[in-house]
Amino acid sequence: MACRIRPASAGDCRDILRMIKELGAYEKHSYETQVTEEALIEDGFSTQHPFYQSIVAELPEGQKSQEGFTIVGFALFIFSYNSMKGRVIYLEDLYVMPAFRGQGVGKRLLQEVAKIGRDQHCNQIQFAVLDWNQPAIDFYRAQGAFDLTKETGYHFFRFGDTAVMKLAEFEAQ
Amino acid sequence: MACRIRPASAGDCRDILRMIKELGAYEKHSYETQVTEEALIEDGFSTQHPFYQSIVAELPEGQKSQEGFTIVGFALFIFSYNSMKGRVIYLEDLYVMPAFRGQGVGKRLLQEVAKIGRDQHCNQIQFAVLDWNQPAIDFYRAQGAFDLTKETGYHFFRFGDTAVMKLAEFEAQ
Repeated sequence: MACRIRPASAGDCRDILRMIKELGAYEKHSYETQVTEEALIEDGFSTQHPFYQSIVAELPEGQKSQEGFTIVGFALFIFSYNSMKGRVIYLEDLYVMPAFRGQGVGKRLLQEVAKIGRDQHCNQIQFAVLDWNQPAIDFYRAQGAFDLTKETGYHFFRFGDTAVMKLAEFEAQ
Repeated sequence: MACRIRPASAGDCRDILRMIKELGAYEKHSYETQVTEEALIEDGFSTQHPFYQSIVAELPEGQKSQEGFTIVGFALFIFSYNSMKGRVIYLEDLYVMPAFRGQGVGKRLLQEVAKIGRDQHCNQIQFAVLDWNQPAIDFYRAQGAFDLTKETGYHFFRFGDTAVMKLAEFEAQ
């Protein structure tokens, strides 16, 4: 399929948010979606120092999905840092709508992320996968990724909103 | 202890690299340290869009560690993004030299990261901990963090240097 992979623009944020929600529903945590279209525009496109980068997969001119969409996949990623390795990409989301899977769109999005990373001297791509999401694990493994949690014991931890606020408000004696 | 917590400058990169290596040795992957002082300076202080942020813990005027150092702890973090939650901090490293532990320096570094995060509207702090590093796990849990890998099954994955190069060099038919 001749999907076009291109950098996202502010005008794509509505589609990106729709797909973030589709992905969230699949990963069973869509209730967590607090991001809005306005926030995506502001954080990705309105600042000199964008918080994230994104690319989209667009159908050829004149084609639409059954639901009437022309943007059918996206990748959202961050220029991050590993203190051992230096510059790395953190791949937050890679998503292709179900009807457009199995046609290499996900692989082309991933390749584009790798190219953008290479051009910025990022020599690794890190990301998180749910341990029950076997299709995703199979896809990433086939492209050469490995499970750092299994191999080295790295666990993801998080301070949620309340914990961050409590830490931030604490004044040292 | 009256350690001063302050933003790092390019001049601190030598100490930061020393402590990255100390931390790597403790975590048993110091062999992986590819970062150099020059790279830390360039990536954190020479670009308009720094790849990481850092703060250091400095001993009071006139005091030194047994080894002759005045910088005895640091935090290295990234302004990152969660597509569900929006702006987040990714805490790559939080380290205090062994002789200065148990005196609240780590907590003060963490609080400062939380404050910087809050000021940038980052409502979460994410990070990785090795599952055998019980002192670190106990410290973070006591401050309100939870283990996302255990609770939701998120695993860290990585494309290493070779896999990224292979992806980046692939040209779609």
